[in-house]
Amino acid sequence: MAGSTAAKLGVIAGGGELPRRLVEICRARGRDVFVLALEGEAAPETVMGVSHAWCRMGAAAQGLKLLRDNGVGDLVIAGGVRRPSLITMRPDWRAAKFFAKVGYRMLGDDGLLSALAKELEAEGFHLIGAHELLDERASVPEGPLGRLKPSDDAMVDIARGIGIARAIGALDIGQAVVVQQGLVLGVEAIEGTDALLRRCAGLRREGPGGVLVKVSKPGQETRIDRPTIGPRTVRLVAEAGLQGIAVEAGSTLLLGRDEVIRAADAAGVFITGVHVT
Amino acid sequence: MAGSTAAKLGVIAGGGELPRRLVEICRARGRDVFVLALEGEAAPETVMGVSHAWCRMGAAAQGLKLLRDNGVGDLVIAGGVRRPSLITMRPDWRAAKFFAKVGYRMLGDDGLLSALAKELEAEGFHLIGAHELLDERASVPEGPLGRLKPSDDAMVDIARGIGIARAIGALDIGQAVVVQQGLVLGVEAIEGTDALLRRCAGLRREGPGGVLVKVSKPGQETRIDRPTIGPRTVRLVAEAGLQGIAVEAGSTLLLGRDEVIRAADAAGVFITGVHVT
Repeated sequence: MAGSTAAKLGVIAGGGELPRRLVEICRARGRDVFVLALEGEAAPETVMGVSHAWCRMGAAAQGLKLLRDNGVGDLVIAGGVRRPSLITMRPDWRAAKFFAKVGYRMLGDDGLLSALAKELEAEGFHLIGAHELLDERASVPEGPLGRLKPSDDAMVDIARGIGIARAIGALDIGQAVVVQQGLVLGVEAIEGTDALLRRCAGLRREGPGGVLVKVSKPGQETRIDRPTIGPRTVRLVAEAGLQGIAVEAGSTLLLGRDEVIRAADAAGVFITGVHVT
Repeated sequence: MAGSTAAKLGVIAGGGELPRRLVEICRARGRDVFVLALEGEAAPETVMGVSHAWCRMGAAAQGLKLLRDNGVGDLVIAGGVRRPSLITMRPDWRAAKFFAKVGYRMLGDDGLLSALAKELEAEGFHLIGAHELLDERASVPEGPLGRLKPSDDAMVDIARGIGIARAIGALDIGQAVVVQQGLVLGVEAIEGTDALLRRCAGLRREGPGGVLVKVSKPGQETRIDRPTIGPRTVRLVAEAGLQGIAVEAGSTLLLGRDEVIRAADAAGVFITGVHVT
């Protein structure tokens, strides 16, 4: 018998490099994989040389059929998705039924993802988190990752940042905040962490640079939307003149660990895992 | 006896048009006024033809002396200030003493303003709010101001926006939020409402436009930093593709009422005062 004994893995793929990393992991382990690539979100590289189909986000009936027809058992949702309005999404009957049940408009991202997770399980799929497939090198332990440690003033900003990030997370607004010398330079909403960092480059004050703090939302659906950092995060943090990055230890996905640490050390940026209660 | 019986008014002037409006009001009422214009913040027009001195923000001893030497009794702080880092501010001994007492770094804007208000009163000035000088045309009542009313879907976004704006206000982050179809497009931090609106122009989803919601922070020092809207707010809201503006009734400063209403009606934008508990 070729391949693994694990059920065939389905990957519902949004943007970024995470979905492709999951594909590579399956290949390395000889596990069958099928990618349902979301139109306008997944990168073409994600599906290269692997069994896949493209599907628009609103075409739920077609998507479910594709997953079933391709024998998917375990299912992972990975990568970024720019949440569209209902009109842009053009929901089919199956998606419309789901949205009518959960109330699209009044749900934040996290509420919607939790509802989606429940719905997919009710359809018979076994939903797993990307972190269950990645090895321990994709997780962030407590303490500094690279050569640099946060300064004392950065620690003060990190403490304030954690409080604020948890609060905006509890409101299901976003996961990230930038704090410099006690000032909140920016709060992440729908624009995402990259755009937050780009605008904070123009808002920084003189003196010691600020910090990016990124934590999971309280009560977040941890199988789908974990805080994630990668090489691009490090580059944008350096370009914004920040001193470093503090992420929640244990729950953050770290993509490209070696590259991230190398880039952070080269740019003089710290990355530290913090325990969040 | 020429002029009024009221004590001479001092205006500590930041950016925007509010300080000049206060000067005009004093003139119309024959009240003596002295403007302490903050360097880098107050517009040159603010001090035209009126008794004034320029002062940098960190020069507290000089500023207090100027106010005293010019016989100021009542004092109003008006206009926007981009809060600098301590280093940029170059505090003199008097400012440094104040910051050492209140702890600059750990205070949000509102905490700092409350402390500043107390300090100025301890120095013998009678601090008043700009709203006490403006007439009732500068306040926003409950309900629509212009021709247009919020649609039912806008009302849903307003409700969510109020909850979020109050929460970020309680954290002393900002006063404003933009919500479209239940999605939080952006949250105001140190960049201010204008910059928030400019970036939300690029984040809007298809379908009915969103709303700008702006409310006072819970426990805010209401004499200094009331939520304020004016003609520019209306223009930026229209350019961002939003349906309208909801502000806290009673506590918002409305600058240029006639112009604001005319611009809103012309752009098809609603402005409504909402009761916030």
